[in-house]
Amino acid sequence: MDRDTFREFGHRFVDWVADYFEEVEKYPVMSRVKPGEVRAMLPSGPPAQPEPMESIFRDFKQIILPGITHWQHPSWFGYFPANNSPASVLGEILTAGIGAQCMLWQTSPAAEELEELVLDWLKQMLGLPEEMTGVIQDTASTATLCALLSAREKATGFESNQKGLRENLVVYASVETHSSIEKGIKIAGYGRDNLHLIPTDKTYALVPEKLEQAVREDKEQGLKPACVVATLGTTSSTAVDPLQAVGKICRRHGLWLHVDAAFAGSAAILPEMKWMLEGAEHMDSFVFNPHKWLFTNFDCSAYFVKDPAALVRTFEIHPEYLKTGLDAKVKNFRDWGIQLGRRFRALKLWFVIRSYGVEGLQALLREHIRLAQLFAGWVRENAQFELMAPVPFSLVCFRFNDGGEEQSLDALNKKLLESINATGEVFLTHTTLGGRYVLRLAIGQRTTTERHVREAWNLILQKTEELL
Amino acid sequence: MDRDTFREFGHRFVDWVADYFEEVEKYPVMSRVKPGEVRAMLPSGPPAQPEPMESIFRDFKQIILPGITHWQHPSWFGYFPANNSPASVLGEILTAGIGAQCMLWQTSPAAEELEELVLDWLKQMLGLPEEMTGVIQDTASTATLCALLSAREKATGFESNQKGLRENLVVYASVETHSSIEKGIKIAGYGRDNLHLIPTDKTYALVPEKLEQAVREDKEQGLKPACVVATLGTTSSTAVDPLQAVGKICRRHGLWLHVDAAFAGSAAILPEMKWMLEGAEHMDSFVFNPHKWLFTNFDCSAYFVKDPAALVRTFEIHPEYLKTGLDAKVKNFRDWGIQLGRRFRALKLWFVIRSYGVEGLQALLREHIRLAQLFAGWVRENAQFELMAPVPFSLVCFRFNDGGEEQSLDALNKKLLESINATGEVFLTHTTLGGRYVLRLAIGQRTTTERHVREAWNLILQKTEELL
Repeated sequence: MDRDTFREFGHRFVDWVADYFEEVEKYPVMSRVKPGEVRAMLPSGPPAQPEPMESIFRDFKQIILPGITHWQHPSWFGYFPANNSPASVLGEILTAGIGAQCMLWQTSPAAEELEELVLDWLKQMLGLPEEMTGVIQDTASTATLCALLSAREKATGFESNQKGLRENLVVYASVETHSSIEKGIKIAGYGRDNLHLIPTDKTYALVPEKLEQAVREDKEQGLKPACVVATLGTTSSTAVDPLQAVGKICRRHGLWLHVDAAFAGSAAILPEMKWMLEGAEHMDSFVFNPHKWLFTNFDCSAYFVKDPAALVRTFEIHPEYLKTGLDAKVKNFRDWGIQLGRRFRALKLWFVIRSYGVEGLQALLREHIRLAQLFAGWVRENAQFELMAPVPFSLVCFRFNDGGEEQSLDALNKKLLESINATGEVFLTHTTLGGRYVLRLAIGQRTTTERHVREAWNLILQKTEELL
Repeated sequence: MDRDTFREFGHRFVDWVADYFEEVEKYPVMSRVKPGEVRAMLPSGPPAQPEPMESIFRDFKQIILPGITHWQHPSWFGYFPANNSPASVLGEILTAGIGAQCMLWQTSPAAEELEELVLDWLKQMLGLPEEMTGVIQDTASTATLCALLSAREKATGFESNQKGLRENLVVYASVETHSSIEKGIKIAGYGRDNLHLIPTDKTYALVPEKLEQAVREDKEQGLKPACVVATLGTTSSTAVDPLQAVGKICRRHGLWLHVDAAFAGSAAILPEMKWMLEGAEHMDSFVFNPHKWLFTNFDCSAYFVKDPAALVRTFEIHPEYLKTGLDAKVKNFRDWGIQLGRRFRALKLWFVIRSYGVEGLQALLREHIRLAQLFAGWVRENAQFELMAPVPFSLVCFRFNDGGEEQSLDALNKKLLESINATGEVFLTHTTLGGRYVLRLAIGQRTTTERHVREAWNLILQKTEELL
């Protein structure tokens, strides 16, 4: 492709993205395609000859786009948000253009140093303990796996890397912990049986006394407690495990404390939300995702550790072909995680923080939290609905409840969710809390305004009426 | 940022990338900055107020760019190439703009189906066994870890996920295997002691008889052989392990056969290179990186498995909040790898294959291989230099050798490499082969032409003369 063609389509794609940002509301939030429909429209084999970008762009618009579920839609209330932003997309253009590999300092010095710097900015913004050091991982799943591996190595005197894990090390998390913990436990060779789930209180937060009890009992039975994963903002309901109390238990028993704040961590840039980090001095590792609620394109997960040497010792490899003369003087991030190859992810994050400024980011998050409180108020005031969990951040868990039997309520709420999403006007997801089917309305998409939240509520009321 | 500002800078960034592609030769390939220099030029804390994109772009050009080592430089001969291409960058713009999460079919149906399709195209292009199924991973490190985990589960009847790995399963690879194998072995809980490295022949390829012998001896000693990782194109010298012979050993002993073709796999799109896949019917899993030698932006690693059910069973998780009504009918790629969150990576790959066409891609690879043979010929013909390994693809391993002592030759070649790279005109890396310090000239950057290879050779001769 010559320079002019690249320029032409680059401009057109930028314009398309600019329009998409403004006009995404015209699409149904959830794609209406049926399984197999998209693939059936595409040729089953690759073309032998080059095709013009015009045809590729046409197919993108006509075939791919109708099969996209629009995460950047302002009426996106599903899962958690996965935001991008204009500044972040601009950063991605340059990252893609440079195409640098950020595995070693030498292979991209500026990328390595910018990553150090921007993670330090995040540390300041959230108010994380000064002694922590940050590195970008792709996802919280990966960061949590890193934490579980460091914990495993530390608990075995860095022997399990060499000999394999041949004893039962126990990891603790609440029953509300994210599925990535279970996945990491399996990958790292602990075994699912050694993940001990601790009960939660009525706010769905881990009960520290139950944790203390479990650790003691496991020790008495000859098991070896190794790690606790506390969650600030669980996926089901954004419950907040009590960090201070959990941290003290970890210190008392010499356990690694990993904190998963994948979604809610971003809120710690607000002075009024820093309460969630009380006890942060006990953390060995902490992860949150700028790609969720800090307007930075996926993937970008910020992982902080108290003891970088333990992380590096967990992962370091020394093949001859990766040695450089500067290895003693610089950070080589290849040893800070699972993958050897690494994208220049710090650039987009730097673009976002500078483009919004800390106060700009704070204003966006504050508004999302305000909107969630507003919505929660409407639920609270309506006799046919009930809030199903506290709303510490911007996720509202609720359900329709006309006083019917629990089983029929579950079925009714499931039907309600389906009918709401089928309109294509909004997208919500569900969970179960205390065994009950619950609707989740997660606010956090960059362009969501009060109008969108009001329209969602009106639609919920309308669909409820139609169902009854 | 308003639409017009986004548009303006989007266009300017596209133009900057277009110019960068054409003018990258004006930069030194390897950045000249010293450790700490970049960071020292940047403010230590984040800005409270928004900064204009003009200032951010200025800092990018003035501070970041001089700290970049230019992987897209046509005189990039280091490591292996990590290519992008105009079509791939265009794809990245749309992927960033849509910002879709590709963890479930429902969260992005077109992304899931395009990924299935494009991996099927790759399967056809390489001539992989029809029964294999593909999925995109971020890197070969991750794909190999997936393979090691599937092998672990299969060898333990899918019990180690549940109970932890409590026995010594042995994994085999040649002494020339990539460092990611060792890393994966540690992560998956096998333990480094259970990675048994098999000697290579004088082409640095695994000796099947030695593998057979090791497996038998380990069995006799009560160990449990589980997996073999064969490499097509090792990192040090692109040696090719004999797939057919290794595969037969794996079938005989019931071992998982994972094939790491991270760099060289792309060459299998050439009819004349398909010899390397002879015996492919024995493979349980196979990985190669379109982000290395198929002109697709990092990250994009293509992972193929014979038994997708074994992969899914290794990773599947079923939290309530991720369930959808279509789970029985569709693929949810969250269960095909380590991360839950996934980017829409198939789009750029689709753009690349269509934009070049298979014949266009073949022509590029053929030219790289031709250039490597040309360079190897010059080395062969020069009495002061020697080829240090066969050149089956486009990597040439060589050294200066005037008949001096081995130790002084090592020191001399190291000095030679440093003086070559210090010019900034080219970038080469090194390895050791048979204990000797060896220079690696890896050809594969998209824009590398005969002129660049000739200039590299002339520079090598000139620097050699200066050193003597």
